[in-house]
Formats: sequence, C-alpha cells, structure tokens
Amino acid sequence: MRVLIYGVDGYLGWPLALYLAHRGHEIAGIDDYMRRRWVDEVGSHSATPIRSMPERSEAFREHVGRPLIFRHGDICESNVVRDMLESFRPDTIVHLAEQPSAAYSMIDLKHCTFTQTNNIVGTLNLLHEMRDASPTAHLVKLGTMGEYGTPNVDIPEGFFDIEYRGRKARLPFPRQATSWYHQSKVHDSHNIMMACKLWGLRSTDVMQGVVYGTRIDEMRDDDRLLSRFDFDQCFGTVINRFCAQAVIGEPITPYGKGHQKRGFLPLRDAVQCLGIAIEHPPEAGAYRVFNQFEQVYDVTQLAARVKAAADSFGLHAVIRNVDNPRSELEEHYYNPDHAQLLSLGYRPTADMATELKTALADLFRYKDRLRARREALIPDIRWDGRRRRSDYLLEPDADASPSAGILR
Amino acid sequence: MRVLIYGVDGYLGWPLALYLAHRGHEIAGIDDYMRRRWVDEVGSHSATPIRSMPERSEAFREHVGRPLIFRHGDICESNVVRDMLESFRPDTIVHLAEQPSAAYSMIDLKHCTFTQTNNIVGTLNLLHEMRDASPTAHLVKLGTMGEYGTPNVDIPEGFFDIEYRGRKARLPFPRQATSWYHQSKVHDSHNIMMACKLWGLRSTDVMQGVVYGTRIDEMRDDDRLLSRFDFDQCFGTVINRFCAQAVIGEPITPYGKGHQKRGFLPLRDAVQCLGIAIEHPPEAGAYRVFNQFEQVYDVTQLAARVKAAADSFGLHAVIRNVDNPRSELEEHYYNPDHAQLLSLGYRPTADMATELKTALADLFRYKDRLRARREALIPDIRWDGRRRRSDYLLEPDADASPSAGILR
Repeated sequence: MRVLIYGVDGYLGWPLALYLAHRGHEIAGIDDYMRRRWVDEVGSHSATPIRSMPERSEAFREHVGRPLIFRHGDICESNVVRDMLESFRPDTIVHLAEQPSAAYSMIDLKHCTFTQTNNIVGTLNLLHEMRDASPTAHLVKLGTMGEYGTPNVDIPEGFFDIEYRGRKARLPFPRQATSWYHQSKVHDSHNIMMACKLWGLRSTDVMQGVVYGTRIDEMRDDDRLLSRFDFDQCFGTVINRFCAQAVIGEPITPYGKGHQKRGFLPLRDAVQCLGIAIEHPPEAGAYRVFNQFEQVYDVTQLAARVKAAADSFGLHAVIRNVDNPRSELEEHYYNPDHAQLLSLGYRPTADMATELKTALADLFRYKDRLRARREALIPDIRWDGRRRRSDYLLEPDADASPSAGILR
Repeated sequence: MRVLIYGVDGYLGWPLALYLAHRGHEIAGIDDYMRRRWVDEVGSHSATPIRSMPERSEAFREHVGRPLIFRHGDICESNVVRDMLESFRPDTIVHLAEQPSAAYSMIDLKHCTFTQTNNIVGTLNLLHEMRDASPTAHLVKLGTMGEYGTPNVDIPEGFFDIEYRGRKARLPFPRQATSWYHQSKVHDSHNIMMACKLWGLRSTDVMQGVVYGTRIDEMRDDDRLLSRFDFDQCFGTVINRFCAQAVIGEPITPYGKGHQKRGFLPLRDAVQCLGIAIEHPPEAGAYRVFNQFEQVYDVTQLAARVKAAADSFGLHAVIRNVDNPRSELEEHYYNPDHAQLLSLGYRPTADMATELKTALADLFRYKDRLRARREALIPDIRWDGRRRRSDYLLEPDADASPSAGILR
C-alpha cells in the first residue's frame, strides 16, 4: 500500500514509517518539526538525540532499501495537503500531525486556542482535500482514549446501542474530555464522523491509550533510527516520565492519589495496531472507532512496575506522589472495550517488565541529557490556570532515598 | 441585572437588548458587524433596512430612557473581551456572536474553517476571560437544536440517565450535527461544559430551535427598532424564507420531501426564553442545557401555514418542493424534550397564524428589497461540496400559479 504519514518526525510517526516500510509498504511522510519547537519552548528536549530529517532518511534508506519520500510542510496549509495527495496518491493517510499535549494546551488562552485551531484546521484540511483529491483513501486518525473521560459505565468502541424511553438507537458514545487538547480530539472525531457520512470517506478513528517505551525491533542497533523520547511535563507520557525519573535518581511522581486508571500500550504495539488498521481498511463511507491499548493500569501500579524494573538495574528508585496539577478523578471506575483490534489479529506484547528494562537501558545511555532538563519533569502547569510547581504529598521511603541519591 | 450581549447587532441580539432594557436591566452590547458583511458576501441584504448602530442606539435611548452601552469589537480578540468584562462588570454574558449559517459553513473549505475557528475561538476567549475577570457571571450561550441531529430516540435536555451493561450513569446526550456550523456549536458545548467543571463557571447552553418572525412588542411602530430579517439561502431561516417567497410571489420551496421536523419558536418567544434563562441563573459551577422551542413542526406543515397566512392577504402563494441541497433525513422520528423553560415560566405565544400575518405585513412594506435580492432565495450551496442551483421537484399547483404571478 501507499501510506502517507502526517507527523512522520514524531514519537509515533517515525517508528510507524519504519515498521510499515519493513512490511513492504511505500511510505511518504510530511512534517514541519513543530514538535521539536514545542518541546524546546517548554524547556526540554528529546532524551534520545534526534537527527535531522536528511540523516534519518538516509538511515531509513540504508535499512529499508527504499527511500522515505519526505516533504517539509504544515498540514494547516491546505495547498500542502492537496499537493501531497495529488503527487503521492496514497491508499492510506495516517494523521499524527497534531499538538498532542494536554498540559501544553492548559498553559494559557494562547496555547488553548493554538491547540484547538491547529488540530481542528489540520483535520478539516485533510477531510476536504481527501474529498476532492483522494475520496477512496482510508484516513487513519489518531484520537485518544481521553476523549471518553472516565464515565461510570463501560466504554464501548465509539458507539453503543441503547434503549431510551422504549425506543432503540445506535449512538456515538458521549465524550467527556478533561483538557483543551483532549477536547480538540473530540471535535476532530465529530468532524470526521460527519465527513464520512456526508462524503462517503472511510476512516478509522483510533482512541489510543498512553504509549510508552523507546523501541521497535526495526530500529535494530542503529541510533539514527531511534524515535524521540520526551520526558517533560507536557510531552512526556506518564510511564516515560517515570522511567526518566528512575534513571536519574529523581523520585517517581504519580499525580495526586495515583489511582487514575488508563489504558496503556508499548510503542511496538502502537505501530502494530496502526498497521492492522491500515491493512484492514473499512468500507467506503464507514467511520470506525478502535479503542487501542493493551491493558488498563492504575498509575500507582505503573510506578511500582517502573521501580521494580529500575531496582533490577540496581537503581533503587523511590515513589513520591505530588499534588495533582490536573483536574481529574483520582479514583474511578474504568472498563473500556478493546476487542476490535484483537479480532483483527493484534497480538499484545504483554511483557511490560521487558519493555521497561529496554527503555531504562536506552535511557541510561542518555542520562546526561535527562539530567540537563530534569527541571522539565516537575509539573507546574495547573488545570486551574495558575502556574505553580507541584509539591510532594508524602515523605519519601526512608530506605530508598539514599540509594536514589547515588545517581545524582 | 447588568447584561452584556455579544452580537447585539444581530437578528436576536438587537430585540433581546430592547426586551431586557424594558424589563429594567442595564444593557451593554458588542458587535463588529460581521453579519452585515456575510449577508452582503452571499449577495443579499436584510429585508428590513437596518440603521447604523448610532441611529439604532439613539432610538433605543428614546424608547428605553437609558442609553445602550455599545462597543465595536470582535469577540475573537481576547483583549476586547477582557476590557469589556472589566469595565462593564456584567452579571450575565449573552453570547450570540457566532457565524450562524449552516449553508455558509458548507460553501467550501475556507468557509468551513472560518466558521469553526471563529466560533470556537470566540467562546474560548470568553471562557478564559470570564475565569479571570468575571468568574461569577452567568454565561448564556446560544447553541442550536441542530447539535443533536435526528436520532431515533427522544432528545433530552443535554443529559440523560442511562443504564448500560448493568451500571448507571448520567451522560451528555450524544451530538450528531449535520453541517460544519452545527458541529462548531457541538464543539462549543463540549468546551463550555468542561470550563464549568474545571473553573466553577456557570452557564446556560441554549439549544435553540428555528426562530421566525419580524417583531417583538417593544419595537412599537418605530422602524428604527426593527431587527434585521434575512431571507437568503444562508442566513434566512426556513419560515422567514417562506414568508419572503410568499410576499414576492415566488413559490414556497421546502427542501426535498419536506418532512424534516424541527422545533420552532417566534422571535418574541426567543427573547422571552433568553430573558427567563438570564433571570434564573444556575448555581456556580453548573452547566445547564435548555432545549428552547415552542413546538415541533414538519416543514410541509409550515409551508401550508405560510401559504394560508399569505392567502388571507390575497397573495395566493404556491408550494413547490426543490431538490434538497443538504444531506439530512427527510422523514424521521423527532421528539425533543423542552420542559425546563416551561417550568421556569415560559408562556409560549402559541399563535403562529398571527405571527405569520404580522411578518407578512411587515415584509410587504419591503417587498422591493426582497425582489431586489430574490436570487438569494434559491439554494445552490450543496452539502456534497458542489455548487448547483436546486431544481423544482414537482409541477406547481395549476390553480395557484396565475394568482402568484399577479404580484410580480
């Protein structure tokens, strides 16, 4: 298949390009390096040193045997979108080119507005240009499990059948997002669902869980093929932040009570699942929602697992909860469905311990880069609009802190 | 109360200002005249000649005895929003300052993007500036019944209690809008709901039905106090378009089969209902949804009612269905709740015949202005993205067309 990836320079986009190329697909990618600038703006950098795109492309060509067709451009400019659809003629369009951070969107009005307009306009451009230039292509769009929030009932995959006052209907499952970023994905989902209905476009809207880890097999031992790895309060996802903290001897910091439950999956499963969606397109006019994650975990469980993995390397991490900068339920029911990808052949890696050890080993090589931006790990962007660094809620474990200190 | 109206130059904003001022409230208004420019852009004008704001304000002062505090400004500029909140210190903020046309949003990508960004950014500005400058004020936001679409079950007011797989939850009722404009209102609703939860703001989100008519009593016999009246394919609502057609002897044109059902209410009921929402604010942190309409009608019924009212003036209008430029169900179940406003004291005018006759009499005085823009009545903006004038689906009634011709 011919697969066009918007956001190919990102955490997911780059490994997805590699993975799909190894499976024989023809890959083109677009990016304008916004992610690099956003991470810089919030005072951080990728733990893994990310090469320039020409260098990445050269490594890609060496390993894959074919070049990555790359274009520097912004999805918010519709002519860029149109040109690429017309010249590359993709079978599948993967849209990963959005501002992906909840905390970044909560900084202030400017960042809120930027996040919603950037994300919505990019998707609207794609939908319109697909209608005119690639109406039969399959749009694989990255959404988030966070669109659903944490309702007190099971979460189906996008739609549910209900009986209400004696009548039946199949309805979109209500979305209750809790950040401006998550809302932008809700808005996208509504827009895409409508475009499929109106214009006969086909789309898979991926409600993805939280991704973690550093590797997929196709990166082999070539550091030029590594993906970026963010660990700051905005762009670092929770397990990745915990790993970064463990490596540099900082306490692992769950937010609040730490009993938030979410669906998680390792990077290798994320590309596997996206590959399955791509290789099993829905029929024309279909808007399909996949809940994409391996398993639900409680954040405190995750902190313990990262600590255990770190301990196995002799790192002896400590866990210290900090006051929660977010507004979210810290104890709640959570039971989302995730059957569709499994039925299409998704085989979960299901070995978090190994994933975590791999990530820690990779990060250990870059601990100086983590240390240089350790300040970026501490949250100070608060959901109430104020800016204040979170405090520790509890004293550290008495036995663990001396060992942790060794790493400093 | 001190009431700040964004969009005070519009179809609803102006009569609302008059109505509330007569009830003793202190009124300030903001507008940047975008509606005037949009209507001009689509080749039309208001049937009623709308005065400049200084002239309108002077008439307002003469009748009300107090001036209208007016500021020329765009809600999409956050400093304008902030300044007005700080200087006027409103108890209530009424947000009517959005692009309100489904057809306009469907013209092309540019108009789609403009509609969604304009509407979303204005609301996000308001929410953020309210948080910082007017956190206890009550936001009355104009949404639309069109947010819900036409599901095969009853439509509650915003939220519903469900049992799903043995567990219970109160959830937002799913939205299934059918134009980029209607989607922009869905996005707003999600954003406002979140802001109330996060920041303790209070808001009434008004899912309004289709408004029609020319008058509220407070306009008396002073033409300077009339509101605008649009009849073009974009900004003219269905009953108003039918009235305009009847007055100039054009066929009344339901779209498609004409069995779309919607909730409708006359202009005087719209301001009455908004007044009730304003005078009965919810508690801090509450996000409340009102379904605001008087009664559900089928479009074919409405065409017959307009024809009957026109006939009583000797106009003898004909009804000719045209092919539907929209993508929408033309026959469907529709049963939305609308109990909350009634329980707070809403007394429906419930006399459509009189409302229609009043509107026709007003419009008859401006029939030259209607005739001058009669082209704007014919829809050519199609939901499939093409531009093509709708054709008549049926032959005209043999007995009615000669009489209709008399008016030309």
